[in-house]
Amino acid sequence: RINADRLWNSIHEMAEIGPGLRGGNNRQTLTDDDAEGRRLFQKWCDEAGLTMGIDEMGTMFARREGTDPDALPVYVGSHLDTQPTGGRYDGVLGVLGALEAVRSLNDLNIKTKHPIVVVNWTNEEGARFAPAMLASGVFAGVHTLDYAYGRKDLEGKTFGEELARIGWKGDEKVGARKMHAYYELHIEQGPILEAEKKEIGVVTHCQGLWWLEFTLTGKEAHTGSTPMAMRVNAGLAMARIFEMVQKVAMDAQPNAVGGVGQVTFQPNSRNVLPGKVVFTVDIRTVDQEKLDGMRARIEKEAAEICAEIGVGCEVEAVGHFDPVTFTPELVATVRKAAGTLGYSHMDIVSGAGHDACWAAKVAPATMVMCPCVDGLSHNEDEDISKEWAEAGANVLFHAVVETAEI
Amino acid sequence: RINADRLWNSIHEMAEIGPGLRGGNNRQTLTDDDAEGRRLFQKWCDEAGLTMGIDEMGTMFARREGTDPDALPVYVGSHLDTQPTGGRYDGVLGVLGALEAVRSLNDLNIKTKHPIVVVNWTNEEGARFAPAMLASGVFAGVHTLDYAYGRKDLEGKTFGEELARIGWKGDEKVGARKMHAYYELHIEQGPILEAEKKEIGVVTHCQGLWWLEFTLTGKEAHTGSTPMAMRVNAGLAMARIFEMVQKVAMDAQPNAVGGVGQVTFQPNSRNVLPGKVVFTVDIRTVDQEKLDGMRARIEKEAAEICAEIGVGCEVEAVGHFDPVTFTPELVATVRKAAGTLGYSHMDIVSGAGHDACWAAKVAPATMVMCPCVDGLSHNEDEDISKEWAEAGANVLFHAVVETAEI
Ligand SMILES: NC(=O)NCCC(=O)O
Ligand SMILES: NC(=O)NCCC(=O)O
Repeated sequence: RINADRLWNSIHEMAEIGPGLRGGNNRQTLTDDDAEGRRLFQKWCDEAGLTMGIDEMGTMFARREGTDPDALPVYVGSHLDTQPTGGRYDGVLGVLGALEAVRSLNDLNIKTKHPIVVVNWTNEEGARFAPAMLASGVFAGVHTLDYAYGRKDLEGKTFGEELARIGWKGDEKVGARKMHAYYELHIEQGPILEAEKKEIGVVTHCQGLWWLEFTLTGKEAHTGSTPMAMRVNAGLAMARIFEMVQKVAMDAQPNAVGGVGQVTFQPNSRNVLPGKVVFTVDIRTVDQEKLDGMRARIEKEAAEICAEIGVGCEVEAVGHFDPVTFTPELVATVRKAAGTLGYSHMDIVSGAGHDACWAAKVAPATMVMCPCVDGLSHNEDEDISKEWAEAGANVLFHAVVETAEI
Repeated sequence: RINADRLWNSIHEMAEIGPGLRGGNNRQTLTDDDAEGRRLFQKWCDEAGLTMGIDEMGTMFARREGTDPDALPVYVGSHLDTQPTGGRYDGVLGVLGALEAVRSLNDLNIKTKHPIVVVNWTNEEGARFAPAMLASGVFAGVHTLDYAYGRKDLEGKTFGEELARIGWKGDEKVGARKMHAYYELHIEQGPILEAEKKEIGVVTHCQGLWWLEFTLTGKEAHTGSTPMAMRVNAGLAMARIFEMVQKVAMDAQPNAVGGVGQVTFQPNSRNVLPGKVVFTVDIRTVDQEKLDGMRARIEKEAAEICAEIGVGCEVEAVGHFDPVTFTPELVATVRKAAGTLGYSHMDIVSGAGHDACWAAKVAPATMVMCPCVDGLSHNEDEDISKEWAEAGANVLFHAVVETAEI
């Protein structure tokens, strides 16, 4: 069993870097705080006797040797970056839970046949640079390195510049590593496990996603002296698309979601009808056909809404992954570990995207989930109990050791 | 008659300060560019032999002496601040048209009985600090100085700090001056004069306005793993209120408008349902009862929309003025001047608010309007012809001289 106190202390030491305003974290990818979080993680890896490799996306790979020189490593990790108003556990639990597994192996002086590599993927959140899971996406060959380097934040800074600036660009080629398996522990970020009173979620699938970035072009004009009939109101079109996305998601029930998290008005002045409105629609469901149907309907109806108002409408897909089915053998390993350890558990579909979803493209992969209070995540109030963290890390530990073989 | 070339050159010299991205201006109030624009205006006033007074709101009063030491001055002006993506004429035409009137009196060596004071009011636009027409509002006793100093921009800087920082805080008590009359020349910022092929608008009234700032409080949550039924979506409530405001405005036709120019999402991340959405509704009409009816209906229906979604709803009126009836004698003076000069003209209601609306509370006041291309304003593409500027300035000149008496 892992050392729950050590895990809990490490999580809270990490949370001191890039503190939020209300007890959470703002440690967005490729900021100075991200760099500091990486230094702390590196220090812990050094202390645990691991060898660090860093790839050209800044992803950190900390390796514990195995006994068989020919055996591929078991990879286990998640991400240390957060949302602008994020929680202390989203991603962090997975990286430090993996580190705790290795620390426990050290304590118990257990050698595994396969090496074990603890991973901190760069820019999982996609908050600063869309899309999410960017580094694991490049690793899996879904995106090119050039595409990733060219991604821009709202201020126009590129991923490539910022990665170089914070000093964490490595020289390892992205995706060169081969994995025996990939495991990821993560908080659920949804309400199901808590409602069902289960300590462990055995993750069988992950919802697919589209992020559709709309750029609506209206005509900037005075709010007071422009008659209603003369307005080319990009804001009104945005509002109607917003409501339509809600309807598309409701029509796709059960097991589908749709919403908008980011909206930018230009020039964003009280007495100016916006000339430009940019916003991103986020839709998800585990059924591939349903997902693509939602996208098609949204694009069609948005075009109709804009045509009626006379607003220009461009749509770019800035994020996407297909629904994922995790590797049944690894899923079974997780289920067995939860049973052996005596934890209540259930099979679950991940509502959020994770690096495991891209890793699943290039290796056997799965995840372990633990509940979070009120299903809340991407919120500074995100919370978990120490017991939940402990259960999740123990199941991860057992599953990893089983796959890495003693 | 005024010197149209000199007026036109001055306008375009001013437009070089705080250039926009597409040929317009971004010379928002209390920025370094605003300070530079003020220095240029001060230089021109010095050259015209005027005496400058500056009040505690930073409003500039440039005085040309009259022949009667007991006669109150005729005030004439507008504003030099712009929207973030504003035009070259909005406000500037009025200040420099007033200056041109004085320059022409100098050229012609005409003395008036009443002094003439050219005014540049601070923060007419209200783009950076709501409400609009802030300095003239304090002048008219509508706002206190403390209220004005405490207004904040989106970065949290206060009006008071920024006024001191740019070095244009005077020590004259605001509103201490008494006016014989107040005139303001302005572009229409709407489509009527151009459509009716009139060179001059004789402004009889101004629409009243409410700016209602809504702060909606939802629950920040993950867009992927938060089921539709569990969402407390402040963005959805915003979209519904947006559509409702449109309906209220359409129901109030003719001669009423309603819209939203400023929207801010928090945390504004693609995969986070917004915990907070702040936006400002702008409604206007010239009928007092209708205006207040629109406000009441919007507040009532917004509360219903928010209650249904479970979103918290706070409303603050961050801008307001009642509909204005300008002084009939001065309106008649403008109409007569347009006739005498042979310009086509019509009576018109101002769709936008102007400093003249507040001046009308403390002095006889009215305005002169000239057309603008496509009725476009609060847009970098705002445009007028030199002939329109000339006609407006000539009418202003004649009306001011008539009231100031030779
Ligand atoms: N787990 C998580 O929040 N990942 C970010 C990508 C997503 O929005 O699902
Ligand atoms: N003229 C003008 O744009 N004034 C700003 C106040 C308003 O929005 O009407």
